[in-house]
Parts: sequence; structure tokens; C-alpha cells
Amino acid sequence: MPDFTDNLRPSQPDGPTTLARERAESNISPKELSEHLLSADGFLERQARILPIVQREPLFSKEKQQNLSRPERFKLGLARAKLLRRLKDQHQWSHDEYKMAEYLVDDVSPYFLHLEMFITTIREQASEAQRAEWMPLIESWKIVGAYAQTELGHGSNVRGLELEARWDSQAKEFILHSPTLTASKWWNGSLGRIANHAIVVAQLLLPKAGSVNEYVSHGPHPFIVQVRDMKTHLPLSGVVVGDIGAKYGYITMDNAYMLFDNFRIPHSAMLSRYSSVDPNTGIYTKPEQPALVYGSLTYVRAQIVHHARLVLARAVTVAVRYTAIRRQFQDRDGDKRGPEMAVLDYPTVQIRILPLLATAFALHYTGQSMRATYQSTREAVEQGDFRSLAHMHSMSSGLKSLCTMLAADGVETCRRAMGGHGFGGGSGLIQLNNDYLSKPTVEGDNWMITQQVAAYLIKKMTTAVDSLASPATDKTDAVFKEFVRNRGNGFSKAGLDVLASDRDVVQSFELRAAALTYDVYEQRVLKKQSWNSLLIQLHKLSKVTAFFESLSTDDFLSDSTKTVMWDLFRLFAFHTMETEAFEFFCCNAVTKSDLDRLPARVQELMSRIRPHAVNLVDSWMIPDYLLDRYKNYSFISIEDP
Amino acid sequence: MPDFTDNLRPSQPDGPTTLARERAESNISPKELSEHLLSADGFLERQARILPIVQREPLFSKEKQQNLSRPERFKLGLARAKLLRRLKDQHQWSHDEYKMAEYLVDDVSPYFLHLEMFITTIREQASEAQRAEWMPLIESWKIVGAYAQTELGHGSNVRGLELEARWDSQAKEFILHSPTLTASKWWNGSLGRIANHAIVVAQLLLPKAGSVNEYVSHGPHPFIVQVRDMKTHLPLSGVVVGDIGAKYGYITMDNAYMLFDNFRIPHSAMLSRYSSVDPNTGIYTKPEQPALVYGSLTYVRAQIVHHARLVLARAVTVAVRYTAIRRQFQDRDGDKRGPEMAVLDYPTVQIRILPLLATAFALHYTGQSMRATYQSTREAVEQGDFRSLAHMHSMSSGLKSLCTMLAADGVETCRRAMGGHGFGGGSGLIQLNNDYLSKPTVEGDNWMITQQVAAYLIKKMTTAVDSLASPATDKTDAVFKEFVRNRGNGFSKAGLDVLASDRDVVQSFELRAAALTYDVYEQRVLKKQSWNSLLIQLHKLSKVTAFFESLSTDDFLSDSTKTVMWDLFRLFAFHTMETEAFEFFCCNAVTKSDLDRLPARVQELMSRIRPHAVNLVDSWMIPDYLLDRYKNYSFISIEDP
Repeated sequence: MPDFTDNLRPSQPDGPTTLARERAESNISPKELSEHLLSADGFLERQARILPIVQREPLFSKEKQQNLSRPERFKLGLARAKLLRRLKDQHQWSHDEYKMAEYLVDDVSPYFLHLEMFITTIREQASEAQRAEWMPLIESWKIVGAYAQTELGHGSNVRGLELEARWDSQAKEFILHSPTLTASKWWNGSLGRIANHAIVVAQLLLPKAGSVNEYVSHGPHPFIVQVRDMKTHLPLSGVVVGDIGAKYGYITMDNAYMLFDNFRIPHSAMLSRYSSVDPNTGIYTKPEQPALVYGSLTYVRAQIVHHARLVLARAVTVAVRYTAIRRQFQDRDGDKRGPEMAVLDYPTVQIRILPLLATAFALHYTGQSMRATYQSTREAVEQGDFRSLAHMHSMSSGLKSLCTMLAADGVETCRRAMGGHGFGGGSGLIQLNNDYLSKPTVEGDNWMITQQVAAYLIKKMTTAVDSLASPATDKTDAVFKEFVRNRGNGFSKAGLDVLASDRDVVQSFELRAAALTYDVYEQRVLKKQSWNSLLIQLHKLSKVTAFFESLSTDDFLSDSTKTVMWDLFRLFAFHTMETEAFEFFCCNAVTKSDLDRLPARVQELMSRIRPHAVNLVDSWMIPDYLLDRYKNYSFISIEDP
Repeated sequence: MPDFTDNLRPSQPDGPTTLARERAESNISPKELSEHLLSADGFLERQARILPIVQREPLFSKEKQQNLSRPERFKLGLARAKLLRRLKDQHQWSHDEYKMAEYLVDDVSPYFLHLEMFITTIREQASEAQRAEWMPLIESWKIVGAYAQTELGHGSNVRGLELEARWDSQAKEFILHSPTLTASKWWNGSLGRIANHAIVVAQLLLPKAGSVNEYVSHGPHPFIVQVRDMKTHLPLSGVVVGDIGAKYGYITMDNAYMLFDNFRIPHSAMLSRYSSVDPNTGIYTKPEQPALVYGSLTYVRAQIVHHARLVLARAVTVAVRYTAIRRQFQDRDGDKRGPEMAVLDYPTVQIRILPLLATAFALHYTGQSMRATYQSTREAVEQGDFRSLAHMHSMSSGLKSLCTMLAADGVETCRRAMGGHGFGGGSGLIQLNNDYLSKPTVEGDNWMITQQVAAYLIKKMTTAVDSLASPATDKTDAVFKEFVRNRGNGFSKAGLDVLASDRDVVQSFELRAAALTYDVYEQRVLKKQSWNSLLIQLHKLSKVTAFFESLSTDDFLSDSTKTVMWDLFRLFAFHTMETEAFEFFCCNAVTKSDLDRLPARVQELMSRIRPHAVNLVDSWMIPDYLLDRYKNYSFISIEDP
């Protein structure tokens, strides 16, 4: 209904005018920087090509989806997932192109598990014969699968799973059975309503040698199991399965519960690339490398690490553009009758948003380094070389914990920095926040998996101490050995000048990591303190230096851009030092006088970065369609007004 | 549909068994402690009486509400609010009893603004004649009102509001007009669909003396305005009003946008207790005490401060019970074949939850102290004594910021400490989190209002410095003067022994607050640094000592309970010191050697508190109905199984 508001304009200067001025006043080229960040694997070109295709589909319009009920939203998610599937065929999209479309549509796909954990597990853990049987069915979508590992009472400790797969040597079948309520499979995505098959992880029970009624558990193993009728889609007899109900986010995902009542599956159901049961003798063959079994989890963690930068960049994009436009109060020291100050000019706003802008770049270089490590390790493993597996496992755990925490907390900080409008749907941050808040706890709870990093680092420190005279075997070993050698004489790096040298900043972080590890090593190995009491200290351990190394070796960026990128590196590092000042002080990684000067230095860096903030977020090239902006909020737009 | 799962039980020991054992093994009496905490104003008795009344109403069942769409959820909220209103009449509930019912039903009432800001503003800012006209209509619900102050482009800076109320001296009317889109009223609760009247805050424009076409703004003033037709409920001609759409939480609230197109209102619409316009001469009378105008906001902030304890207590209740029952991994140093360890026995879980348990108690004593200050100040003001107004305003701002931050971050920390189940609807924390996350930004953004606290404290420090020889006028003045006197000789409190003396703990916090204030005072007043650069430092200023004073003067609690309460006080204080170690160190409020010993002391305190954790949360008496638990999660129940 037309009314007088149709002709109203925002007060001047309005959003587009302000952003245009911000963009003109910075000498950073978003185009150049975005190519540096996102062109390597064709991401930018792919986004530009796929965006118009998904954007013209009415089914993908995000305008009213926040008003829908959970069942309606699930059905919409399902319809969208099917349309994406049809578009994939129609445009002959590669997997990367399909993932791009999914990223832009921004629904958690109800088919996610089919396309990720289900297919990956078959690919990696099924025998040749099993792969030949199942892969064609999966790839042609003749069956739809899920991955059922977690139980109501059992998550990270996979050994604690209760579901039983008991070998019946007469019938040569396994019997799946849930002995308790806590043995209910729980959380398993794509299974509540959709999947007809699932990888089901259960305790493998085999008869005890020389006994008829006694069984021995050989630990959790994966089985491929049909759970619903292919015609009626009803659960098979002996299977109880359904949707677990409302969650914080993931509204389009049918996370499931599932229980089995003495449900029989054939011998061929057990995925047997690495371990198997002889159907005739019932004899069990163990995997040579138990770590291989966790391959899919490492893959998912590496993906999460790589994706974190885009999540944080999206929130920072919204927050920077909004606070550049939003004005509030006059400068107390300035002209009281002039226009109000842009909120982003307040140091109290800068200190919340600009370190996160720097963090988005830090996450980028970390993600790249994670991806490179994953690829080289997989290649080595395929050729039988398992040496780097422990390092990759530790790296993916530690970085998954660190990166998801930084991104999840960062999204919320951006939201709050926008005041009331961060609470409104127009911010585009609601679904992002709701969905992403799963990340600190899924695929290995952040606090829990830090144990794995700690175990690895203690082992490295023990080796360093025991082989102090031998040459260093890798970078970590070198840092640890140097630390141990210099412990006696008041630390080696007392002369670090973090305010003047970027390399000293990196060495300061190295020193702090080594000192914390040594503390833990000393208490654990030398003083025999209880493991659990130490975990608190260990959570603070992992940090990254990939940012420094990438900038040091980069020969793509122009001088003006690189100057700002170095400032971002310093802001990220100094802000961390400031937050954890006492720890840096105690191990002499930063001197007291430098710590005293840090707040002023951080403010100086922020005022240098501030004029480029809009162009820096532009360089992440998050399209308006993904920002999910409302018409009311047309000021937060990357495009020309 | 019955199936084999009907007879399944959780693995043993199950939730009720574990909680029963936890409860039996602690010598803390939840009954005694709950009376100490909640009986003073009859809260406990009221809860026990109202709970069965609301719980038996099918409309108040929370079982399926998470599956509803936003429009459905709004309608349900409206129906519930109406039923609450009918029950109030039926049972002749007092305002406190009505608020209790609302607290238990746990919907944000769509009528909230009618009952709070609308009625409060009329009560406090209307003239006698206006009160006589409007109060009967409001109290009998013949009209329903809202409070329309915030605009799309203007929030905390009330002076920046754009909506105009121009005085037409011919017609003797005001003309309300929205000159721009950013002048749209925005966020105004109860107005999007429900209210027919609103307090509308607009710039009062009066003709410039001796001019016909020029106007002068006398700043924002409140007007009472009818906005919808009393029969058709359609917006009156010249009014554009509606719902702003989806938000993070507050799903049952119809937050509004509203614009006016040269909309005429009578002279009597301007609330004129403190300021007025002479209808014949157009001459403006200013309020004597401008601070009085902000009375309603201070009231709302004080309420928020007082409520924070129950929000955090609710999240901590869920987290403590869940982690006491949930088991994961064997103790690495213990028997590898025994049952898994309760998650709450891990120091990494304790360090997240137990300081929050301590914080809930700290918030309680803070809230009590806030309420007492509010009441005594209101009484003084009613008798014409305005001296304590500045202190109350500063206290309500600072504590609103601190308490909502502690509670909001605490709910999220509890949620994440529960791993995957914290992401599930069964946690009962989803709506709590979604709704409460509005609190750090509403009624004065937390970061912004810290300015008001800072301004007050700088003024106090300036006075202390200028009148060093005079006797102290209040507690703050005494602390500041002592600090200033002893600045020269390496601080007065170098001898503080925080690990041995609880009083020294309080003095350490006092010293740190004085030192930070002095820093800011020095830079602002002496070194003339820009105000905005200092705000970052100021946000860390406010802390509370009410916990200490309440325990010191308490003569109600038994010795065993009081011992644990002192441990909670120390955990709260030491955990804060540890988190902000460098600041305490720099001003010599805690020595380096004490800071080094803090982590061990915190762990020792946590292991002393741990056995009482379940009984301590029980003492908050949060009923299962409010915890909003699902049947699947029956283990987190306060009641007997």
C-alpha cells in the first residue's frame, strides 16, 4: 500500500554516500586484495558465475524465511536441496561448483551427510568389493545415506558407545541392538526423516575363544545398514528412528535418534578395508594403523578450519559497513553542533571490530596452511608413509578448536557492536550465529580435543629434552630445544623487541608456546601431577604464525596494500598479547615496558587501519545475497546503490 | 506408538540415581540457602503458590512451542498474556504475583510496555490533570499503550532524535512529522500490532522569538498520542505503523516501526509535569532537574540488574546437573576399566561452570544492593532531595552493563560446556539465550553507558584530588583519597595478602578500581587526552564488593553453608584476578608471587566447592517447569524422580 513513506529518504549523508566516500578515501584496492585471498583455487570466478544462477531462483529467496516454523523451514530446505541437485545436473557443476551454490544459498543442506561423511566413509573404509557395490548407488542417489555414530550418552569418547553389533556365527550375521536409552543414536544429521541407509558405528562383539555365551568387544566399528524401506520409506522392523526436535540452529537439518531391537544385518555390512571378521572362523583382523579410522573426522575438521575465515569475514563485513554509516553523539572534544560521529570512529567500537578484521585475515592464512598440510599428508598416507599423521591430527584438532572459537565469539562480538540492530533480523547475522554456534562443540568439543594437542606437544617436549644434543627434526623440535637449552639463564629471548620487529613478534609467540608446554611437561612428566589438572593451562597453547610467513613470502600484493596487511598482522598479535599480558610477561616473551606501551600502540594501529576498513571488508567479496540484508538496511551493501 | 524403547532404561547409574547421591553427599541444605536468597520479599512462597496455577493451564505448556512459526508464536504469546490477565483478576493477584506468573510462563509479554514504560512514564512525567485523565484508562486496560522513543537511526543519543513536534500557535496543536526514513520510530515494543496509544518522544519545535517561519528545538519531549482507531484498530490517517520483522529473540513481542505525516495532536498531549508550553504565548518552561526525565530508564536498568542473578542461576542449574550426570572418558590416572568420569569432575569443565555458580551469588548480592539504593533514592527524590541521583544513575548504568554481560556470556558458556546437548532444544537454554542476548544492548548499550559511569568517577576523583585535606564525604571518596595520598610511596596496599585475608581481597579490588580511575583522570584531566581514546580502559572499571559485605554481616546461614559461601566469594574474586592478572599486578593490588599461586588456589577452591555444586544450584529453586526440560532429558530435574 503506497503511503507518504515511499518518498522519504534517510537523513544525509546516507549509507551509500558514506560508503562511497569511505571507498574513495582508501588506497587499498579490494579487487587486488580479493584476488590475493580468493582466486588461488578459482573461488572468486566461481562465485561470480554461480551467484546469478542461484539468485534468480524464487525458491532461493531469503526474504521471508525467518518467519517460518521449524517444519516449514525443513521442507523449504529440502526443496532447495533438491533444486540445487537439479541445477548441478543441468549445469554439469563440479563438486566445487555445487558447494559454491550451497554456500550462497546458505542453508545447511539436509543431504549434507550423504554428500560428506557417508560417501567419505564408504570411500575410505569400505573394501574394494564394498566400494564397487555401494559407490554407484550413492553417486546416482539411488540410496541416500547418513552417518550414525554419536549416541545420547556418548560423543567424543567413541570407545564408550553402547550400541552392540554381536556376531551370530550360526547365521553368519551381525545383530544390532541398543541395550539402553543412552545407547540411542543421537544428533545424526540427514537421518531423522531423509536417509534410507546409514553408516552405523557399533561395538563389535565376537564370541570369546572357547565360550558359547561370552563375548568380547573389539571396539567401535562402522557398518553400512539399510534403515528404511525403499518403497514406503517407513523404518524397517526392529529400527526406531526419528527427528530429535528443535535445536539452536541447523533448522533445515533432520538430526535423528535411532535405536535397534535385535536387528540383523549381513556379514557384508561391516566396512572391511582396515579390519574384518572371517565369516567362517569368526576371527578378527585388526587395522594396521588405528589412526586411519579417524580419517573422515580429520577431513571434516580441516574443512571447518578452512571455512572459519569466511564466516568471520561475513560478520565483520556487516559490522564495519554498519558502524561506518551509523552515527551517534558528537565528538566530546569536537564541534558540538556538527553531525554525529560515525560509530566506527569510536575507539570502543574499533577495539571490538578491527582486531576481528585482523583475525579474519589470520584465519585465512591459517586455513591455507591447514589445507596444504592435509593434502600433503593424505598423499603421503596413500603411499604408505604415516609419519606426518600425528602432526596433522594434532594440527586439525588444535586449529579446529581455536578457529571456531575465534569465529563464533567474533560473530557475537560483531552482533553486539551493532547495538540494537545487531539483535534485529536485518543484520543478517541471526541464522549465521545460530548455525555457527554448533561448531565449537561438534566434530570434537573444542575443550575436549585440546587434550589431543596437549598429548602431542608433551610428547614432542619429552623428545626434545631427551635428545637435546641431536639436531632438530622439525620446526617445533628446534623451538623446544632452544627453549630448554636457555632455560637456565633467564630465557633466551629477553632481548625481543616486539614493538620494532615483526620477526620478534613471532619469536615472542614461539617463546610463550614453548614456555607453556614446558610448564605442562614439567608438571606432568617430572612432577607427576594429575593430567586433568593441567588441561586448563593447555587450552591457551595453540596459536599461528602462518600470517607472518605468508606476508613475508608474498610477492603479489602492492606496497600500499602490504603496508596495511602488516598493520593487521601487528594488530592481531598485539591485541592477543594485551589480552594475555600476564602470560607473555611471566615467560619474558614481552617486557613489562613493552606491555605498558601496547595499549597506545594498538590504538595507533587501529587509527591507521580505520580509513581502509571498508575496502578491507570489501575484499572478502561477500555478495549482498549472502549478507541476507533487508531493504530497510540497504546501507550495508557492497554494490553500488 | 508403543515399541521396544518403552521399556528401555538409561545406562546405570542414571540421572536420578546420580543426583540423589550428589545431594546426599553434601552437607549444604538447599532449603536453608534458598530461604537466605529468596525469602526476603516473599519470592519463594509466591513461586510455590503461583506455580501450580500456571502449570495446569494447557495454554502455558511449553512442549511444542519451539516448532512454531513467528506469527504463530506471537499469537500464542498474545493468548497467554490475555490468560495471565484473566488469572490476575480471578485470583486477585498483586503486581508481584502477576510478575511471578509471567516469570514462570517465561514469554516476553506483548503487553510488557503497557505495564512498564507506558504506565511509568505517565505516572512520573504527566501533570496532575493528565494523570487524572489517563491513569484510569490505562489501569482498566481501556487503552493499551507503548513507548516510542528509539528511531531507526537514533538510539542512545536521545538528543539526536529526528521526529518533530512543531507547535502551531494558530491551531494550538503540535504537528508530529517524520522528515526522513531514519526518523522512523523503531524497536518500540507492544506497538507493532497491539497498542492503540503510545508515548511518543519528539523534538519540541517552537517558533523563534520574533519570527514566523523559523523554529528552535528545545530537545526531545514525551507526548501521549492515540495512533490506532479504537473500533477498527486501523492506524489513524497520517500514521504509518507495523511490525519490524524477525529478531534474534523476543519472538512474542511486536516491536514496531512508526512514522507520522504532519499528524496533529492537541496541546494536552505533551506530558507536562516537568516542562510545558504555554498554549497562549508559546513560551517554554524548562524542567528544574533534567535528570528526572530519565527516571523510567533508571528503573528499567535497576530491574535488569536485579533479574540477572535468576537468569544465570537457571543456566548454571542446567549445566551443573547435566555435567554431574554426563560421563565421558576414564580418568587417565585412574582405573581404565571403571565407569567413565562425570564431566563435572574435569577441571576444564569446573573452570567454566563453577566460577559462574559463584557469579550467580555475586549477582544476587549486587542486585540486592542495587534495589536498596534505588528505593532509598526514590524516597529521597520524592521529598525533594536530589543529591543521591547522580550516584544511583551511575550505579544503575555500570551494573546494568556488568551484570548483563556476566549473565549473557555466562549462559553461553554454560551452553557450550554441555557440548552437543547445549545446542539441542532439550537444554532449555535456547529461548533463554535468544531473549537474554538483547540485554547487553537494550536500555543503553553496555559499552555506551559505561561513559556515564566514567564521567561520574572522573568527577569523583577530581573532587578527591581537589579536597584532599577535607574529610571523606562517602565511601568512594574515602577510597580515592587514600589512593591519592599514598600514590607517591609505591601504593598503600603493597602489603595486601589476598590469599589469606578476605578483607584484603576487597581492598585489592578497591585499589585496582582507584588506580584505573586515577589513570583515566590523569589522562583526561591532567594530560588532556581525547575522551574517546580512554573509553576502552574505562569499560573494565566497575566491580562489586556487596558479596563480601553481605557475608560479613549475615547471621542467618549455618556454619557449613557459610564456609562454602566464603569459598564461592573467593572463587569469584580470584577467578577475576586471574583473568585480569596484569592489571592487578601493575597497580600492585596483588603481588607477583600471589598471582603465581592463584591458579593452584582456584583449583583448590573448585575441588572444595564441587561436592556441593548440585545442592548449591538446587538452592536457587528453579522449577522444572521453568527449566523447560524435555522428557529425554529427565535427568536434569530438581524434583524426585
